[in-house]
Amino acid sequence: MTAAAPSRTRTVTWEDPHIGAQAGAGMPGLDYLRAMIAGKLPAPPLARTVGFSLVEADEGRATFEIEPMEFHYNPSGAVHGGVACTLLDSAMGCAVHTTLPAGVGYTTVELKVNLVRAITVRTGPLRAEGRIIHRGNRIATAEGHLRDRDGRLYAHGTTTCIILPHASGKNPPSEGARDS
Amino acid sequence: MTAAAPSRTRTVTWEDPHIGAQAGAGMPGLDYLRAMIAGKLPAPPLARTVGFSLVEADEGRATFEIEPMEFHYNPSGAVHGGVACTLLDSAMGCAVHTTLPAGVGYTTVELKVNLVRAITVRTGPLRAEGRIIHRGNRIATAEGHLRDRDGRLYAHGTTTCIILPHASGKNPPSEGARDS
Amino acid sequence: MTAAAPSRTRTVTWEDPHIGAQAGAGMPGLDYLRAMIAGKLPAPPLARTVGFSLVEADEGRATFEIEPMEFHYNPSGAVHGGVACTLLDSAMGCAVHTTLPAGVGYTTVELKVNLVRAITVRTGPLRAEGRIIHRGNRIATAEGHLRDRDGRLYAHGTTTCIILPHASGKNPPSEGARDS
Amino acid sequence: MTAAAPSRTRTVTWEDPHIGAQAGAGMPGLDYLRAMIAGKLPAPPLARTVGFSLVEADEGRATFEIEPMEFHYNPSGAVHGGVACTLLDSAMGCAVHTTLPAGVGYTTVELKVNLVRAITVRTGPLRAEGRIIHRGNRIATAEGHLRDRDGRLYAHGTTTCIILPHASGKNPPSEGARDS
Repeated sequence: MTAAAPSRTRTVTWEDPHIGAQAGAGMPGLDYLRAMIAGKLPAPPLARTVGFSLVEADEGRATFEIEPMEFHYNPSGAVHGGVACTLLDSAMGCAVHTTLPAGVGYTTVELKVNLVRAITVRTGPLRAEGRIIHRGNRIATAEGHLRDRDGRLYAHGTTTCIILPHASGKNPPSEGARDS
Repeated sequence: MTAAAPSRTRTVTWEDPHIGAQAGAGMPGLDYLRAMIAGKLPAPPLARTVGFSLVEADEGRATFEIEPMEFHYNPSGAVHGGVACTLLDSAMGCAVHTTLPAGVGYTTVELKVNLVRAITVRTGPLRAEGRIIHRGNRIATAEGHLRDRDGRLYAHGTTTCIILPHASGKNPPSEGARDS
Repeated sequence: MTAAAPSRTRTVTWEDPHIGAQAGAGMPGLDYLRAMIAGKLPAPPLARTVGFSLVEADEGRATFEIEPMEFHYNPSGAVHGGVACTLLDSAMGCAVHTTLPAGVGYTTVELKVNLVRAITVRTGPLRAEGRIIHRGNRIATAEGHLRDRDGRLYAHGTTTCIILPHASGKNPPSEGARDS
Repeated sequence: MTAAAPSRTRTVTWEDPHIGAQAGAGMPGLDYLRAMIAGKLPAPPLARTVGFSLVEADEGRATFEIEPMEFHYNPSGAVHGGVACTLLDSAMGCAVHTTLPAGVGYTTVELKVNLVRAITVRTGPLRAEGRIIHRGNRIATAEGHLRDRDGRLYAHGTTTCIILPHASGKNPPSEGARDS
C-alpha cells in the first residue's frame, strides 16, 4: 500500500469444476470422495484457492487438512475465521456425502461454528474432521472439529444438510441445489 | 487432473498483515475500517486470496463486496458455502468493530450462517452487509445478509463477539485474541 | 426443601392438543393461528404450562407474549434461558406457519438463540416477535426478537424450518413431522 | 375451548429460587449441582414447572431427565421444541458449571439446537447429557444430546457460555449476569 510495504505473491491453479460435478452425480458419495483423494477427480477450485485438501473419507466421516499461511490472515494478524468455517463446512458436508448412494444429492442448509483459539502461521497443520450425528431421510446433521497435530482444538461446529433424493444426472446439484 | 482437463491460473498479491494490525490497535474501529476502504491501510491477505473487499462502514454497519468466480466453486459446481461464511464473518465482525473506541479489541466467538440460495458465476456481484444487534460491555451480537444487486438473499447469519477492553498496543489481538 | 423454605403453588389447566392439531391440518396457517388468538381453538398445552400466549399473526409474522414470573426461574435467580428459547421457537415457527396454505405442514429443524440480557420478575411483560427471512419451497428461515415494552432486547434468534408439502389430513404432523 | 373439550389440570410446587442462588455463589459448581441432586438445595422453579430434574453431574458433564407428557405439547400434537431446548440449555450450562471453582459464575451467551426426531408421550423418558467441549478463561463451549433409553437421538445442540471471574457474593449472577 505504502511504498515500503513488502508485497507477497502466490499463483493458484485449478481445474474445471464441472468435471467433478458431473462424475459425482452418478457415484455413491464415498466412492466420489475417495476418487478425489486418489487424484482421479480434480480438487474443487476453492480448495486450491484457499489451500486445503481432503485427506480421508469413511462412512459418516471426512477429514480435510490445511497449513495456515499468511495469505489466510485477517486484519488483526491471525487467520481469518472464514478459513475455519470453510474447512468445517467442507468436512461436515462431506461427512454427510459419504452416506449418500449414487443419484442422491445434498446441500448445506446452515452451519454454526465456534472459534475457540487463534490460528497463526506458527500453529502448524490443522485437520478438520467432520462426523455425521443424525442421518434422516430428509435431513442430516453433522459435527466438525478443527485440531492441530497435538489434538488442541481451534474451532468446532455443527451443520444441517437437506438430502435431495432422486436428483437427476441431467440437473446436477450445481444449478439448483439450494432452495430458491 | 487428466490430460484433457483445462487448467486455470490466478495470481494473488497481498501485503504484510502486521502493518494493518499495528495501525489498527491505536485507532477507533470506524476510523480504521474507513482507512482501509480509502486504501490508506492494506486489505487483509484473505480478502485478496478470496477476492472480496470492504466497501462501506458506518456506526454499527459494514458492507463487503464480492464477484462470484469459478475459483470459488465447490465440488458440486456452485460457490462453496465457506465463501458466504467468510463474507458474513467479515461483515458482522466489522459491524462490531465500528462500535469500538481506540484500544478496545474484539474477537468472534461464534457465527451461524444459513445458505438459502445457490451462488454461481451467473449470480453477479454480491454484497454482505453486517449490522449490530446488541452491543453490551462484554458481548456484542450482529447479523449479516448476503444479497445480489436486485436484493435477492443468498445467505444470512448471526454472530457473537467478545469485547476485549484495555487491549494493549504491545499485545495486538493477533497473538492472543481468542480464548485459549 | 428445608423446613424453612417457603413453598409456592400454581395450577395449570390445558385442553386436548389433538383438537387443535386436527383442525389445523385443514386450514391455512394464518387462519389457524388467528382462530387460536380468537379463542376458537385451544392454546397448546405448553403455552399453558409455561404461561405464554399468541397475541398477533400476520403474513410472515407472529408475536407471543409472556409475563416473567418466579416459576420461570433457573438456579441462578433469573429466568431460565429455555423460556426465551421456547418463546422464540414459537414465534419463529408460527411466522413460517403464516405462509403455509391448507394441507402443508412444517417442522422446525434447528434454532439458534442469543441471550443478551437477564430477565427477572421486575422486567415486566415481554413480546417475542418472529419474522420470516426466506421462504423457499423446501426450507424457510425466520428470525425472532424478545423485547420489553420499552423495546429493550433480551434475546434474539434464527430458525430453519422444513416445509412438508402434501401432508395428509390423515397423518397429522404430530406423528411423524420430524425426520426420523 | 368448546364445551366438549376435555380439560386437564396439574399443580406445580416450587421453592424460593434465591435459596439456591445464594448457596451456590459460595460453592464450587460441581458441589453445588451435587447438593441439588441430593435434595439439599431446592430444584430451580422452571424445572418444577416443566417437570425435569438434574440426575448426574461430574467434572465437565451434567445430565437431566424428563418424562414427555401431554402438558409439553405444541399445537401440532407433539412435544414443543422449546422443551428440548430447555433441557439442553440446562445440561450444557451445568456441564460448564461443573468446571467452575467457588466464586466464579457463568452465563449462557447463545445456544443452537437441532431437533431431529418428534417427541411424543409414547417416547418414554429422555436424558439430556451436556459435555464441555472447550474451557477457556473467558469462554466455555459445550455440547448436548437428548436421547431415549435405547440411545435414539431426539435433539442435539451446542452452547457458548461466558465465564465471570471474581463474581462477588454480594452481586449474585441473578441480578446482572447477562451483558446489558
